[in-house]
Amino acid sequence: MRNAESPEPKALKPVELEALSQPLSASNDPDELHEECGVLGLWSPEPLPVADLLQLGLFALQHRGQEAAGICVSNGKDLVIEKDLGLVTQVFDEARMQRLRIPAANLGIGHTRYSTTGSNLRFNAQPLNVRSSKGILAIAHNGNFVNALQIRQALLEHGAVFQTTNDTEVMINLIARYAKLDLVEATARAMRELTGGFSVVLMDRHTVLALRDGNGVRPLVIGRLSNGGWVFASEPPALALMGAEFVRDVRPGELVWVDEAGGLSSWQVLEPCPTPCAFEWIYFARADATLDGIATHPARIRMGEVLAREAPVEADLVVPVPDSGIGAAIGYSRASGLPFDFGLHKNPYAGRTFIQPTQEMRDLKVRLKLAATPVVAGKRVVLVDDSIVRGTTSGRIVQLLREAGATEVHVRISSPPIKFPCYYGIDTAARKELVASTHTLEQIRALIGADSLAFLSEAGVREAIGGPVCLACFNGQYPAGQPEEEVRKEALETEGASAL
Amino acid sequence: MRNAESPEPKALKPVELEALSQPLSASNDPDELHEECGVLGLWSPEPLPVADLLQLGLFALQHRGQEAAGICVSNGKDLVIEKDLGLVTQVFDEARMQRLRIPAANLGIGHTRYSTTGSNLRFNAQPLNVRSSKGILAIAHNGNFVNALQIRQALLEHGAVFQTTNDTEVMINLIARYAKLDLVEATARAMRELTGGFSVVLMDRHTVLALRDGNGVRPLVIGRLSNGGWVFASEPPALALMGAEFVRDVRPGELVWVDEAGGLSSWQVLEPCPTPCAFEWIYFARADATLDGIATHPARIRMGEVLAREAPVEADLVVPVPDSGIGAAIGYSRASGLPFDFGLHKNPYAGRTFIQPTQEMRDLKVRLKLAATPVVAGKRVVLVDDSIVRGTTSGRIVQLLREAGATEVHVRISSPPIKFPCYYGIDTAARKELVASTHTLEQIRALIGADSLAFLSEAGVREAIGGPVCLACFNGQYPAGQPEEEVRKEALETEGASAL
Amino acid sequence: MRNAESPEPKALKPVELEALSQPLSASNDPDELHEECGVLGLWSPEPLPVADLLQLGLFALQHRGQEAAGICVSNGKDLVIEKDLGLVTQVFDEARMQRLRIPAANLGIGHTRYSTTGSNLRFNAQPLNVRSSKGILAIAHNGNFVNALQIRQALLEHGAVFQTTNDTEVMINLIARYAKLDLVEATARAMRELTGGFSVVLMDRHTVLALRDGNGVRPLVIGRLSNGGWVFASEPPALALMGAEFVRDVRPGELVWVDEAGGLSSWQVLEPCPTPCAFEWIYFARADATLDGIATHPARIRMGEVLAREAPVEADLVVPVPDSGIGAAIGYSRASGLPFDFGLHKNPYAGRTFIQPTQEMRDLKVRLKLAATPVVAGKRVVLVDDSIVRGTTSGRIVQLLREAGATEVHVRISSPPIKFPCYYGIDTAARKELVASTHTLEQIRALIGADSLAFLSEAGVREAIGGPVCLACFNGQYPAGQPEEEVRKEALETEGASAL
Amino acid sequence: MRNAESPEPKALKPVELEALSQPLSASNDPDELHEECGVLGLWSPEPLPVADLLQLGLFALQHRGQEAAGICVSNGKDLVIEKDLGLVTQVFDEARMQRLRIPAANLGIGHTRYSTTGSNLRFNAQPLNVRSSKGILAIAHNGNFVNALQIRQALLEHGAVFQTTNDTEVMINLIARYAKLDLVEATARAMRELTGGFSVVLMDRHTVLALRDGNGVRPLVIGRLSNGGWVFASEPPALALMGAEFVRDVRPGELVWVDEAGGLSSWQVLEPCPTPCAFEWIYFARADATLDGIATHPARIRMGEVLAREAPVEADLVVPVPDSGIGAAIGYSRASGLPFDFGLHKNPYAGRTFIQPTQEMRDLKVRLKLAATPVVAGKRVVLVDDSIVRGTTSGRIVQLLREAGATEVHVRISSPPIKFPCYYGIDTAARKELVASTHTLEQIRALIGADSLAFLSEAGVREAIGGPVCLACFNGQYPAGQPEEEVRKEALETEGASAL
Repeated sequence: MRNAESPEPKALKPVELEALSQPLSASNDPDELHEECGVLGLWSPEPLPVADLLQLGLFALQHRGQEAAGICVSNGKDLVIEKDLGLVTQVFDEARMQRLRIPAANLGIGHTRYSTTGSNLRFNAQPLNVRSSKGILAIAHNGNFVNALQIRQALLEHGAVFQTTNDTEVMINLIARYAKLDLVEATARAMRELTGGFSVVLMDRHTVLALRDGNGVRPLVIGRLSNGGWVFASEPPALALMGAEFVRDVRPGELVWVDEAGGLSSWQVLEPCPTPCAFEWIYFARADATLDGIATHPARIRMGEVLAREAPVEADLVVPVPDSGIGAAIGYSRASGLPFDFGLHKNPYAGRTFIQPTQEMRDLKVRLKLAATPVVAGKRVVLVDDSIVRGTTSGRIVQLLREAGATEVHVRISSPPIKFPCYYGIDTAARKELVASTHTLEQIRALIGADSLAFLSEAGVREAIGGPVCLACFNGQYPAGQPEEEVRKEALETEGASAL
Repeated sequence: MRNAESPEPKALKPVELEALSQPLSASNDPDELHEECGVLGLWSPEPLPVADLLQLGLFALQHRGQEAAGICVSNGKDLVIEKDLGLVTQVFDEARMQRLRIPAANLGIGHTRYSTTGSNLRFNAQPLNVRSSKGILAIAHNGNFVNALQIRQALLEHGAVFQTTNDTEVMINLIARYAKLDLVEATARAMRELTGGFSVVLMDRHTVLALRDGNGVRPLVIGRLSNGGWVFASEPPALALMGAEFVRDVRPGELVWVDEAGGLSSWQVLEPCPTPCAFEWIYFARADATLDGIATHPARIRMGEVLAREAPVEADLVVPVPDSGIGAAIGYSRASGLPFDFGLHKNPYAGRTFIQPTQEMRDLKVRLKLAATPVVAGKRVVLVDDSIVRGTTSGRIVQLLREAGATEVHVRISSPPIKFPCYYGIDTAARKELVASTHTLEQIRALIGADSLAFLSEAGVREAIGGPVCLACFNGQYPAGQPEEEVRKEALETEGASAL
Repeated sequence: MRNAESPEPKALKPVELEALSQPLSASNDPDELHEECGVLGLWSPEPLPVADLLQLGLFALQHRGQEAAGICVSNGKDLVIEKDLGLVTQVFDEARMQRLRIPAANLGIGHTRYSTTGSNLRFNAQPLNVRSSKGILAIAHNGNFVNALQIRQALLEHGAVFQTTNDTEVMINLIARYAKLDLVEATARAMRELTGGFSVVLMDRHTVLALRDGNGVRPLVIGRLSNGGWVFASEPPALALMGAEFVRDVRPGELVWVDEAGGLSSWQVLEPCPTPCAFEWIYFARADATLDGIATHPARIRMGEVLAREAPVEADLVVPVPDSGIGAAIGYSRASGLPFDFGLHKNPYAGRTFIQPTQEMRDLKVRLKLAATPVVAGKRVVLVDDSIVRGTTSGRIVQLLREAGATEVHVRISSPPIKFPCYYGIDTAARKELVASTHTLEQIRALIGADSLAFLSEAGVREAIGGPVCLACFNGQYPAGQPEEEVRKEALETEGASAL
Repeated sequence: MRNAESPEPKALKPVELEALSQPLSASNDPDELHEECGVLGLWSPEPLPVADLLQLGLFALQHRGQEAAGICVSNGKDLVIEKDLGLVTQVFDEARMQRLRIPAANLGIGHTRYSTTGSNLRFNAQPLNVRSSKGILAIAHNGNFVNALQIRQALLEHGAVFQTTNDTEVMINLIARYAKLDLVEATARAMRELTGGFSVVLMDRHTVLALRDGNGVRPLVIGRLSNGGWVFASEPPALALMGAEFVRDVRPGELVWVDEAGGLSSWQVLEPCPTPCAFEWIYFARADATLDGIATHPARIRMGEVLAREAPVEADLVVPVPDSGIGAAIGYSRASGLPFDFGLHKNPYAGRTFIQPTQEMRDLKVRLKLAATPVVAGKRVVLVDDSIVRGTTSGRIVQLLREAGATEVHVRISSPPIKFPCYYGIDTAARKELVASTHTLEQIRALIGADSLAFLSEAGVREAIGGPVCLACFNGQYPAGQPEEEVRKEALETEGASAL
């Protein structure tokens, strides 16, 4: 039997059909913070599959940089480097791994990179390697030098040439310039000349160096292989995957060196003044990492707990923005007694989105990644996330929850408002693009359409983490200095002049 | 000052270094269940960017098949198809999208495919399209016909040729064989001839058909565009992303047809006997989907709640296996009052793993994907997952938790033991590979090294879902029939003989 | 010392700058004739690297089709096929070769394809393989069936489905339809049903068949391996590269079969009426080939000699259009006594051009491929080529020679004017696009800007080749029949309706 | 009727079946000479599609380097560079061209590279660009500096770092080191410091420089666009394809500069002492090129004529090795009165061969490229080629001709025996690998299996070319100096130590 059916079509608008054909770079979401790099080093007293181990370690550090990856290995004689734009598993295909598997390799370094907008160029991938007065060197770097431009200018005037706009090339040129010093001395001298936040791993064909700026802004840890070899990594989970045991963090201002015999020497080159980046605990570092003695996921739970205490609200459900708000949402749920649930479904394939975005299409971008689940229908929801950069994404998410029937949406952010740029390796937006830099709390709340909005206090962050931290992006107090504005501005214009 | 340092290296074994260079196919994990397909259809009264909308819809159905994807569009005159192995975002690069964006397109169908082991061949990708006595047809199919081989044999004897081993090609040949019937009649007749579990979307250059087997084993829903057009999809989230409003499920045994004027006609071809697949609620369908009136994530929470009631345990923490165990873990936590936390960190890049696995390497595979977080240290953990197939992965995860300091690990599974193969579109292992088919509960517990192990009962599943379901993989009662064993065995041997 | 220099710029126009960014498909030059295919077959009494040998043979047949290539191999049990768009060396990369190198392979077939405009689709690549009542079959085909559409229509009405628009699929369906006959009988019966010009190689998992239409329009030869195995190939140079010795041509209307024991049986299925395609000697077949007892390069020299006798001219230099006019130019030079020289340089990388072509850009296309050398300056040139299709290229070349200083350009063509389409496997233009079909000799001369123009006569072709040949494209007399116009026209419209 | 057929198989050996699976790099044939580079520059007074024009020019220079290609363009503000391994048409795909098509571009340079064995690395591709005290510079280079290693060593000691082993990086560092001089002065100073054979094109964001060493070893010509712009290119055919008119050659030792206003200035930096490389006329330069006033193809014909006079032989046929021996074979035929014919067929797809070569496989490599045609059967053949490097290929070709029935094979080479390495940019083998360096004429003849063998004399080369030329590879007299042996040897060891 045939039943003709014609329900009345309602005025649902197909999602911005006209703009669907624009390409979308998934990884440059301007509404997220980006760590700039992960670094690795390995030295073994006997031949090992160094390239394969570094590949595993980089895979564990993939979250610290998705634009490019590189590995450099040596057997004391040959030194081979492979790097390119792409994820670790894309860059290190079988052909590249074969080229890296040189006989009797026993040392190497690795790098994952998040490049800043407009400079996602292959030639900026690291490790960077050069031939210098000290032989062949390779370097991998996480962070930024705040006086890189001045030093670069001085080097140019002495006849140096640069092939990239990387800070890293400045450091390696500086080391090479101290032609009369040995590698360790020259590196220590360069540490003293450069200011900012940086963790660096450096190798020649026989030895590996690792160092951290005096404030220890960026993390770096030491691990040990069962055969007596050494591993350096931005975060401990890389050690675990490489089969190394955690030994300790590299200390702020410390330079460590694995010599040709495998001895680990240490120099306290700079006065230590520890202020590691708070955002490592708020968002960047892996949930299974422990940095400078403090585990990240429990710290995030504590942030949620303090936040619940600082900014309670009457509601039915605590919902995290997956995955960044999960830890704090659990903490908020525990401290508030409100039930925790996944009110937002994250499409696990969304990292590879592909379509879009004119300004109007930001909506689609969020919808490709997130969808509200039926559990929010009829509920007063506490929506928990780690931070707000521009605010547009938060607004879209509030809207998704309302469409799915949430009756109230209270946004709780487990960090203070970001008002200042980071000069130590995080790709925050320019200051004028930071919504908290130009809007009041109430204005932001209105902008994102929330029923209420609260941020964790600076004191709350300190309490939850429990150690000294850099909070410069929240309060503008830069413990490791900031660039001379004049130089910076001029430099940016010069950069802009070249898409090199 | 220089401090020589040489901590005593401990006997930590680097993770199976010797085997690191083996390739790993991320998507054929034999210890997971795989849905075989997602299907889509669209008909609009006016030109739309059909290919772009189908691409969005397929992106929302990516979890139903990651091996291949395809889109077919028509404007009533031209009909273009693009399909290949790969994820939706890989297959539909800019070049392919350009070829699909034909002028004035107003209808199309789409498909995502998970192919069974050994047959991940490009020519098996769908939609399948053919020229027949009824003109050009294209078909997209989710499920399996249990009598496909008998029908295929009969067609061969009448001179038909087949280019694939797809069930789908059998259906389309059957439809073509009814050369004197019109398309709707021929399709209805084919529905009557074929038994099994299947949802199908079919198009010619003007109209779209959608149908579901009499048991409604596989899901299929109807949506409406604001312009009066119609959309068919395996799950409602695809409708949402395409801008369509959910209308209703296609009924078991129903055939619906959007004719050239946009009218939707319906025929109840087969007697409805609804037993939709329970695994859609246990695991497959998206957490934000509602199928046959029942939302999946809340059902998963209920499964956890019933499980806590059926198999309580004294413990400190409820930990999900991410992401499959999350819903049930929340339910278990709520019903038991034990705190919920993420004791396992999932590497978000693990979908693209790359290295691996001889049998010994299974461990690395799990470690690339999961790592235990410090919150489990010193805790008695309830580990919640949705199912156990072979049991090896569960064992690895228990081990990870113990290494991270969990004092007890109690495994709770939110479905009954899988003992029987699925003949309706899920790629379960052969029966002898199903651990629950060959081991007792206690043997499985010992195998995975858990302190205790419990599965949800069949009654518990029924209670949590709350509607009639197919539980054949748990109890061997096949509501839609099963293949004649002799034919099946013979057929498998023939298949084995050709890597075609 | 510094000398400022500023020669007066002349009014040389940069080569059509505005249009440089258009893509150019190098292989679909509408001003050249295209052979549609090369075929191969191999059977060995013992395991051989069959895939590698077929790859070599296809490489030797690359000139017969550059759009797609495919290889199918079997070891009597498994049957594997790999095919794709691209040159032999592109299609058969290491990954594909590995998949083709099955253990103990002892038979296989291969194919290179030139697809007609608009249908360069992957699914049209050959070998085509199907599962049929006779088991798995694979087929490779060169030529066309003139009654394919009628037979296809009849098959459709009996319920067959087609996945391509290939003639080949018609033949394989026809063979499958004779379900009660064995493979050899069914193939012989299909040969009798089909008319046109075709050479076919066909295999199942144990045996290989080869056949040629009754007129022997397309070539096919038999070779023998030193181990007693058999090889079939479109041209003898493929035998040589595969290490096989030439035995003889397959005879017009003959079907040969290598059975499972390696015996070669022969059936004269059709009355032989040999009229092989004259263009094999004029242009298509390799210069080192001998077909039906007549070597091609010497035949081309004889064409030039006869042409010099038929159309002498007072001049200084005989210049070939490289490479197609070389043989005839040598002959013209010898018979006329005028010196031979390369007045045109062919860029050896031009097969891979990339830029272009609005109609205006035809000029750039020729310039990317050819440049006049200084030897023509001040000379009266006889320009020799094998044929004229549309005439545009010839005109461009005449212009190049004049720009380089040639005082006169006399064009001599070593074949008669092409006035009729080929229905036997050559992709000639539609009749209205053939310049000789719509213009007088004098009009063509004026069009291409030559000082004089002459074509070889039909009698001249016959004399130079020295055997019976098909001259249908010159005189419209089709020895193997031509399609019923009504059916054809209708069919073309149907095809046009689908870009499948 | 069925006729069983079983000809007696003969002992033809399938072509080295066992080795077919080895990869073959088509472009590193050790038995050919390789030019190392082609260079281009362009400056226009108004915006032009600079990238497209440079792509055309590079296409015309593809024969000078097939390993890598690069283009750099600027609009006075932005400067963009794209380069990679591959042919011009491979490197400059649509995506790369889009990135190069910056608005209002009016200048640029280009490069094609043949890299020496083992260093076909992406980072060695040119143009090389750097940021220096003089702003951003880009450089493209053809040739070699014989004192590069000494200068490099001195720069290293002053703190410079190098990222490649390219000579080119030495030159650009040297220019940057003269930080107080302007770009033209610094470049002139670098010209004076560096010795060897080199043609260089250099740009900053506003101007273009071109220069040639004092001996003019490598070619470089000046052309003019109709709009008043300037073009520099290694060979005139690149000018033609870019729509520029030939003006003159850059003079040996000359530096020319197109300033921001479009004025062309010239400095005679080095004393001109012209000895251009003879091999440009013998083999490298295109047949349609005229360098330093002498056309190449006619010079090749004259070489054949002189050779026929110096080394006559009684024979029936003059056969060139295609394509390198064609010009000389025509000349030999004319002077000797023996008929010219193509006794060897060259597979036009052979540039992309793929299979290969242990030493035993050299034979297959030649057979993939060349096949003897039937015209040589029963003939006494004069086989003409341009040069012999190792002699293996010549031996294979002689064998091919004999297999095809040639009764005698007399080899005639249109250049003297190569006995010395080139230090000015040609990739000759090491001296011990040059057959003429270690064997007598009679030994070479025996090695290649010829009935007789003769080389053109040095006097013959001079007579045929008609101007002063560098003959260092024949007589060891290096007009532009040669590297200090000690430094060279040490350097090579260092290079070997790194696969960088």
